[in-house]
Amino acid sequence: MIGTRPAGQHTVRQHNAALVLGAIADGPGTSRAGLAAATGLTKATVSTVVDRLIAADLVAEGEPEQRSGPGRRGTVVSLSPTGPHGLGIEIGVDYLASCLVDLTGTVRAQEVRYADNRTPRVFQRVSAFLRKARKQADALGVPVGGVGIAVPGLVESGLVRLAPNLGWRDVDLADRLGETFTVANEANFAALAELWHGSALPDFVHVSGEIGIGAGIVLDRALFEGVRGAGGEIGHLPVAPDGPPCSCGANGCLERMAGQEEILRLAGAETVDDLVTALESGEDTAISAVTTAAGHLGVGLSTVVNLMDVPAVVLGGTYARLEPWLREPLLAELERRVPSTAWSPVRVVRSALGTGAAVRGAAGSVIRGILADPEHYLTAHWPSD
Amino acid sequence: MIGTRPAGQHTVRQHNAALVLGAIADGPGTSRAGLAAATGLTKATVSTVVDRLIAADLVAEGEPEQRSGPGRRGTVVSLSPTGPHGLGIEIGVDYLASCLVDLTGTVRAQEVRYADNRTPRVFQRVSAFLRKARKQADALGVPVGGVGIAVPGLVESGLVRLAPNLGWRDVDLADRLGETFTVANEANFAALAELWHGSALPDFVHVSGEIGIGAGIVLDRALFEGVRGAGGEIGHLPVAPDGPPCSCGANGCLERMAGQEEILRLAGAETVDDLVTALESGEDTAISAVTTAAGHLGVGLSTVVNLMDVPAVVLGGTYARLEPWLREPLLAELERRVPSTAWSPVRVVRSALGTGAAVRGAAGSVIRGILADPEHYLTAHWPSD
Repeated sequence: MIGTRPAGQHTVRQHNAALVLGAIADGPGTSRAGLAAATGLTKATVSTVVDRLIAADLVAEGEPEQRSGPGRRGTVVSLSPTGPHGLGIEIGVDYLASCLVDLTGTVRAQEVRYADNRTPRVFQRVSAFLRKARKQADALGVPVGGVGIAVPGLVESGLVRLAPNLGWRDVDLADRLGETFTVANEANFAALAELWHGSALPDFVHVSGEIGIGAGIVLDRALFEGVRGAGGEIGHLPVAPDGPPCSCGANGCLERMAGQEEILRLAGAETVDDLVTALESGEDTAISAVTTAAGHLGVGLSTVVNLMDVPAVVLGGTYARLEPWLREPLLAELERRVPSTAWSPVRVVRSALGTGAAVRGAAGSVIRGILADPEHYLTAHWPSD
Repeated sequence: MIGTRPAGQHTVRQHNAALVLGAIADGPGTSRAGLAAATGLTKATVSTVVDRLIAADLVAEGEPEQRSGPGRRGTVVSLSPTGPHGLGIEIGVDYLASCLVDLTGTVRAQEVRYADNRTPRVFQRVSAFLRKARKQADALGVPVGGVGIAVPGLVESGLVRLAPNLGWRDVDLADRLGETFTVANEANFAALAELWHGSALPDFVHVSGEIGIGAGIVLDRALFEGVRGAGGEIGHLPVAPDGPPCSCGANGCLERMAGQEEILRLAGAETVDDLVTALESGEDTAISAVTTAAGHLGVGLSTVVNLMDVPAVVLGGTYARLEPWLREPLLAELERRVPSTAWSPVRVVRSALGTGAAVRGAAGSVIRGILADPEHYLTAHWPSD
């Protein structure tokens, strides 16, 4: 599960700290009296909690709030711009990405480095990349409150059970890298970023096409991870069961038929940039490659819509860049294969975050974790208290 | 949605009636004092509610409870055996079924009549069948508290939007038959019956193979109907996208490749009884037909498991009868196509209810509706109160 803490006894103190910090996040620039009114807690309780949050630099005092009429103006508080930041790292098949966000979720630094990660040296490379990202935070003078790592694979209880495109099986990143992280599937992190910063839809499937294809499903503004946490796996949906063999051992899986590598191969392009250039100049081979992929993607996504009756598909990752050419043939295939589109249309929209969604979700999940349980963060960082 | 009532103001009276009736259902043969202890309501409130429930024959007084020690023995109450019964009707492609259950969910009467319902005369036929089922209830001296109708199609707000195997589109059964019902997809009713009376699994996909193939998905002991109520559609999952055309207009849909008609055709059998006889005598053609269907079913169900990480598949309908021959090849295909089976096995179990599940779920949903909101039932049947 992403952004949740191990189950524990939720004390009143934990509850109150989360309540007050949540109210500050929702309405920055509020006085202690305003927070008392918003939370229903007494002013004394709010003051105690706020003082504690200020001491940990989760919250900072600011300018007095604008108010007419008599009476002392209360000092206002907001999330601290120098408070703990969330660091996200994405281990892509052919790139590493980092993203540093502050407590409001605003991006403060980001970096992408391209290199083929299908090598045993990947762990050293991630270690060095992580050190560099921490140095960036140091240079900005902000502490790193936690690290979220996005991987293109199936994660169970922090263990990467399977990441076929990296050749990983049962990889314990905490053990490999010597520190603990929130590790999760990149598609789930990307869907969360889309939920937090994207199209404001309450229910959607975010599908990101990179070398693998991942889907993150959001239902009623929450990530749907399936019964045991391994849901949303669409990369290996069989869209052409008698098709060519996939890296997973089965045949004609969605990512084999509609992944980035197959699209580039069909289009005769070297890179996604080359492909987009060819598409923009209307080259038939390129357009035909994307149309073919859209058909396979439609077969796969029709399954998601038929099963879960999700009203929107968000095209993320590389698909966001290809959206102008993917959208129509994808919609046509969905309408052909989803009977309920006759009375309940399905929307296909482009992710505003594109390839940066997963790493942003990884960074944001650290922040969401702190906001949801500040007391846990305080205890971990001020254990003497 | 099945078994829920239109949203309305839930009064204290509604809440208390449901609370007391629920406690009686959970612990039949309990005194008023016992109910007060179980619900936290005062004895006076419990008595008022119980008297009202007795007047409506939802509850009946019985023998004094067995108790040692001094003091007056309280009269005990249980769900009334002569109270409102739930009548379920299933409109299958080639049969009509009825089922009458009492307030405890026990079957009191049932009937199946075989005939091809792909005819405009189906509505007259259903009307006559419904009248006959009501007469059965009259003969037993019990009132019908409501009717649930199971259809092999997509239902939205009581309207059958699409039932391709019956050739229906936008059919309003209430209008056609001149009375109101709870209408829902047969696969969803079947999954609910399995949840209520079957294998006691909290999370499963119930797949029933008849002429169509339907799935009902239960997550955390509740029916998962998708965002807009049309979820669980697996009959038209594309398992062989380049395969033969399906009645829905697409190609190689699951029910075209693994439905009852295709299995019978491949096996060269006339009826399911003939097929089972051939399977029991080890006939190659029959076994090969079921194995082929199991492969396609595995492709389709791997999708459900990959997307929702559901830990169990319950084989219902005709598939329950074919389970001894379906199970192994189906498991093999699931293991091949679901990466997470490497650490999270999937179980394949046989439904104990078989082809009778959908109609039993339709009947039971009437009872669940009454138990969940007895005040609604009381108001509808004793409007003068």
